[in-house]
Amino acid sequence: MKIHNFSAGPAILPASVMEEAAAAVREFNGMGMSILEISHRSKQFIAVMEEAEALVRELLGVSDEYGVLFLSGGASSQFFMCAMNLLDAEDTAGYVNTGTWSTKAIKEAKLFGQVKELASSKDKNFSYIPKGYDIPTGLKYVHITTNNTIYGSQFQTLPETDTPLVGDMSSDIFSRPIPVDRFGIIYAGAQKNMGPAGVTLVIVRKDLLGKVTRAIPSMLDYRVHIENESSFNTPPVFPIYVSMLTMRWVKAQGGVAAMVPLNEAKAKLVYDEIDASPLFTGVISDVADRSRMNATFLLKPGYEHLDAEFLAACKAAGCDGMKGHRSAGGYRASIYNSMPIASVQVLVDVMREFAAKHA
Amino acid sequence: MKIHNFSAGPAILPASVMEEAAAAVREFNGMGMSILEISHRSKQFIAVMEEAEALVRELLGVSDEYGVLFLSGGASSQFFMCAMNLLDAEDTAGYVNTGTWSTKAIKEAKLFGQVKELASSKDKNFSYIPKGYDIPTGLKYVHITTNNTIYGSQFQTLPETDTPLVGDMSSDIFSRPIPVDRFGIIYAGAQKNMGPAGVTLVIVRKDLLGKVTRAIPSMLDYRVHIENESSFNTPPVFPIYVSMLTMRWVKAQGGVAAMVPLNEAKAKLVYDEIDASPLFTGVISDVADRSRMNATFLLKPGYEHLDAEFLAACKAAGCDGMKGHRSAGGYRASIYNSMPIASVQVLVDVMREFAAKHA
Repeated sequence: MKIHNFSAGPAILPASVMEEAAAAVREFNGMGMSILEISHRSKQFIAVMEEAEALVRELLGVSDEYGVLFLSGGASSQFFMCAMNLLDAEDTAGYVNTGTWSTKAIKEAKLFGQVKELASSKDKNFSYIPKGYDIPTGLKYVHITTNNTIYGSQFQTLPETDTPLVGDMSSDIFSRPIPVDRFGIIYAGAQKNMGPAGVTLVIVRKDLLGKVTRAIPSMLDYRVHIENESSFNTPPVFPIYVSMLTMRWVKAQGGVAAMVPLNEAKAKLVYDEIDASPLFTGVISDVADRSRMNATFLLKPGYEHLDAEFLAACKAAGCDGMKGHRSAGGYRASIYNSMPIASVQVLVDVMREFAAKHA
Repeated sequence: MKIHNFSAGPAILPASVMEEAAAAVREFNGMGMSILEISHRSKQFIAVMEEAEALVRELLGVSDEYGVLFLSGGASSQFFMCAMNLLDAEDTAGYVNTGTWSTKAIKEAKLFGQVKELASSKDKNFSYIPKGYDIPTGLKYVHITTNNTIYGSQFQTLPETDTPLVGDMSSDIFSRPIPVDRFGIIYAGAQKNMGPAGVTLVIVRKDLLGKVTRAIPSMLDYRVHIENESSFNTPPVFPIYVSMLTMRWVKAQGGVAAMVPLNEAKAKLVYDEIDASPLFTGVISDVADRSRMNATFLLKPGYEHLDAEFLAACKAAGCDGMKGHRSAGGYRASIYNSMPIASVQVLVDVMREFAAKHA
């Protein structure tokens, strides 16, 4: 049976990328060796790293004022690393709290400096993106989580401020163009739109570094990784390779701008079904804040007893990974770049048939 | 042409592991999905994590007093994490300096506490393992690099002390039995004997944790990873999976004890050729300290002009990755667990024929 992978992450990657990655595990680039056993200092892998960096710069429009890094440790390590590198103990950074990941980012940043929570949607279980809040001057940076994987909300416009933004884009990187020059740091765990788990993209404005007074361990210092082109230590070779293949695929589709109408069409398909359904309702209270990457929905009041049956119907149709995160409940259809619209149609058909049968 | 991969790391893995890993990139475990796109919370991947931990415990004899962690960030992150977690600012740790990696471990530890260099072989370009030095009481731990990948030396006996050892075993983990109870922490980047780059094994004695007064970011706190069974954040799924396959392979060979005679036979083959050769000489001055994992050697004085020609002869025979690290010069044959003795014989034949032609 064909499986439609709606998992929130690690998540679906293009089928052609899987094929090429599997072939490289057998033999890479005619070397007589697997991609898993070649030196990270080999000219063949250095070419992979260079192409990966060039693709990030080309796809997102990243200038030389920024370093492009492939690190390990996930976005969870960036929660503290951005503060450790940018924020002295007496400095203040602003954070917009839009969910679980923002909350964790705030907690870790507080170990290194002062944190001002500029706005929060915790009052309504993170079901919207805060708007209309003041951003004072004098902040070192303003941190946002551009897409909230768990709740299914997404910033459709950026906060209005001249302060550099720091953006956790783990679940919507490469899904739409980014005004990179608004950001001091952009970071993203690979395992949604970029590649498999095990590598984290960090784009960092070089002139912001070296201003804090604390001593920083080499592995946590962005400057060390910039100087060493992400190879200060042995980088995660295979996750970087597969990320490079995925970026090649994005480029072949027409680049990030070409992703937008495809992602909007997929999101519209799910959200239209939710809005028309007698059985389902969306999680996000302000529809303008709905994520194009993670569509979250619930059974309407009175139908909650159908939970297990709906998940079984999804599974029977090959729709995998539909259970919502325990913090949000219900269902979540993650519809990243490489999710075909045909798979989304399969899900929508399941939703419609299930509603016709039960509502 | 058959390639014999003598690379120091990332390094050769068993051919059967590569085959199984490639198949899992196509489809894992009959799930209709690739290992690269399944959730780290799926029961199938949790089974991989549990088997990986169980194999570490079985192969190395690790009791429940220790946590077994699969982290990212490489051994280079452990250089500072072991000090950050075990050493308060006024505490002192002892370090034996046996090469590039020990030197880096010392540098990073100094950011967090007092470091006493107990002994060093820097005086002779790290060509031996120091012996006969005093180890004072009152140290929090004694750090050693059990195998020095760059220079080709290896501790054949452990320092005599009642203080817990901290061991960087990146390049000889699973190559021989370890008296785990002598250690407070054992750590190892996977990319030599354990798996591909992108995951780091950390074995840590739980009762040593929680004693320092500093605040530790969640991702750097061993206790957080123990509580969350290495899944506090998304772990490096594929590198862990391939490491698990490699450990299965070690077990199928008869376990770590069965590796010893095989590794000794391979090392003897290379070292006997070096010692009998009119052309080559070993790098390590005390032959008792020679590594069973990385055999390093040089052209004898007067023959250095043959360098490029020897490397070309290696390459012509399919012996890849033979160039020594720039810090040690000459040549390095890395002969990890999964290197077949037949490949070592190919190299020795090249060395012998080259000597017969030129000496």
